[in-house]
Amino acid sequence: MDTRVHNFSAGPAALPLPVLEQAQRELVSLPGLGMSVMEISHRGKVFTEIIESAKATLRALLRLPDNYKILFLQGGASMQFSMVPMNLLRGTGKPADYILTGVWGSKAIKEAQKEGTARTAWTGKGDGFVRVPKKSELDLDPNAAYVHFTSNETIEGVEFFAEPETGAIPLVCDASSDFLARPIPVEKYGLIYAGAQKNVGPSGLVVVIIRDDLVERVPAGLPSMLDYRVAVENDSLYNTPPTFGIYMVNLVAKWLQDTVGGLGKMEIINRKKAELLYAEIDRSGGFYKGHAAPESRSIMNVTFRLPDEALEKEFVKQAEAHGLSQLKGHRSVGGIRASIYNAIPVESVEALVAFMAEFRKGR
Amino acid sequence: MDTRVHNFSAGPAALPLPVLEQAQRELVSLPGLGMSVMEISHRGKVFTEIIESAKATLRALLRLPDNYKILFLQGGASMQFSMVPMNLLRGTGKPADYILTGVWGSKAIKEAQKEGTARTAWTGKGDGFVRVPKKSELDLDPNAAYVHFTSNETIEGVEFFAEPETGAIPLVCDASSDFLARPIPVEKYGLIYAGAQKNVGPSGLVVVIIRDDLVERVPAGLPSMLDYRVAVENDSLYNTPPTFGIYMVNLVAKWLQDTVGGLGKMEIINRKKAELLYAEIDRSGGFYKGHAAPESRSIMNVTFRLPDEALEKEFVKQAEAHGLSQLKGHRSVGGIRASIYNAIPVESVEALVAFMAEFRKGR
Repeated sequence: MDTRVHNFSAGPAALPLPVLEQAQRELVSLPGLGMSVMEISHRGKVFTEIIESAKATLRALLRLPDNYKILFLQGGASMQFSMVPMNLLRGTGKPADYILTGVWGSKAIKEAQKEGTARTAWTGKGDGFVRVPKKSELDLDPNAAYVHFTSNETIEGVEFFAEPETGAIPLVCDASSDFLARPIPVEKYGLIYAGAQKNVGPSGLVVVIIRDDLVERVPAGLPSMLDYRVAVENDSLYNTPPTFGIYMVNLVAKWLQDTVGGLGKMEIINRKKAELLYAEIDRSGGFYKGHAAPESRSIMNVTFRLPDEALEKEFVKQAEAHGLSQLKGHRSVGGIRASIYNAIPVESVEALVAFMAEFRKGR
Repeated sequence: MDTRVHNFSAGPAALPLPVLEQAQRELVSLPGLGMSVMEISHRGKVFTEIIESAKATLRALLRLPDNYKILFLQGGASMQFSMVPMNLLRGTGKPADYILTGVWGSKAIKEAQKEGTARTAWTGKGDGFVRVPKKSELDLDPNAAYVHFTSNETIEGVEFFAEPETGAIPLVCDASSDFLARPIPVEKYGLIYAGAQKNVGPSGLVVVIIRDDLVERVPAGLPSMLDYRVAVENDSLYNTPPTFGIYMVNLVAKWLQDTVGGLGKMEIINRKKAELLYAEIDRSGGFYKGHAAPESRSIMNVTFRLPDEALEKEFVKQAEAHGLSQLKGHRSVGGIRASIYNAIPVESVEALVAFMAEFRKGR
């Protein structure tokens, strides 16, 4: 067995080790079955139990009200950038409001503009996407079909800790990189989507949580694969779903429930990890410079710069040599990004903080 | 380790055992990496090598001409039912021709009709989808944007062994259930797509092979995730692809190349397996009644009925007890379906044939 490294990948990101170990044990044959989970019909008894367990465990973790459905779809959050306006904007004659706090929200509005009128209700672009807006800054249209925001911008490390208030207008959220990181008041949302490859499972799967009344708004004539109503009516089995991915989501959700002890416990651990890192940034006397404004600092993606690019390169290189992997920032922002999703143990963060302290002492 | 059963699943289907064993060994950590293939950036060096190897091996297996691209997309063949007409029909003012030899082709034309004019160039529905058309039976429009056919209808077990002749009109093929089963003259095709979960890898991935001139026809303004041009320009990495699925495709393709010895060798084995089964059907004196007409008999999905449904139920039950798994026919057709994709060893087919002979002797 190879030694596992400290893995700070922004995604596809680290998975809980016990989950990987169970998947490994069962990869050639599910217990007593003589077949891999990848080799069985998605409509058979065994897989039905897996997908139902995944849904039930997510439902329990999120304390999901009865009037919400959980869907497992394909195409990642990027496909949702189009599916949301196809299903909820097309044909309404209304605009949709987008709150832009980073790269992903900016991509989402571009796709929405192909389907209808998508307005910028606020953008943080002017100051380089360093914070979320104050309530008073939002320019919301009272007639909007929905309001879209990105709860955590993975690239910039900018996170909302309170939902935008939209009254009766459905709130739609790209929660790809902080889904299941902490409890959220689901009843405030109309639709939540999250690419699995940060906190939920492997890439190639997106979890969608949709309130029943939004399903009823879906216009006729959409491509079947892009129609929320079809997905709901077929319980995510309109066609063959990514069965291995759903199996992994089930294992991750059970790990969160049984080993971690739920989203409240997960939040405590996640906040501790984030505080350790931001504390090192703050005591570095400006050597490490955090990208996000303090009140919007992500507890999932900690982004910072060093005094110059040569030092950043050296930092990443030496970190690798210390078993601290995938720390390079996104190419569009540069610098360093430490992604500390649910599966990253506190020990990994402590190892990184120790390295950071050591690295800056030498300068 | 559990004993593996003989797995005749129509999909998600059996994978080659050496592939599953390698995936199992490497699941927690790729050799020397300290991270699972599911935990690494899709833009990093390690995954880049995997996806490039998968493409190169498929290219070699298919002897793919230089003017074709290989794409790894999400949403399965069902998403292609819409993507093909969105990209190749929308805005052309032309019709598309569909040849219907079963359930999947019939689904494909329904999605195409949402995007434009899709004509039925031939349908086998009248006699229950038992055969492919003769050349003289095809009603092709000389002005068609493309001609679509389903090379193997998984549910009915009806397969084309020669491509429809369409002259200069691009030929589009849903090859989901016989892709890589035998060599094909790729140069006759404009576009080939195949859901991975039969012969190529786990579900959640679709392989698309597209000729360069078709990419140039793609209209502006499509959702980025549904735009072949975007996929080509980003080399299947517009967003996070199903990385584990692509890793598995690479292993399966290498198994085909190195262990089996290529598609020609694979065809010899596949034909032998099919002949063993059809021979038992033919010598059963009508006890087993094949669904497909002899000249259209699939070498991937062998479909047959027994004298009555009670016997069919008993057959499936006793087969399970003999370690012969997932033989029940699709709910829309009934009866028995033995799917004998690339990964099914001759020994599994021999075991099934022996069971079939034994089962009918008792009646």
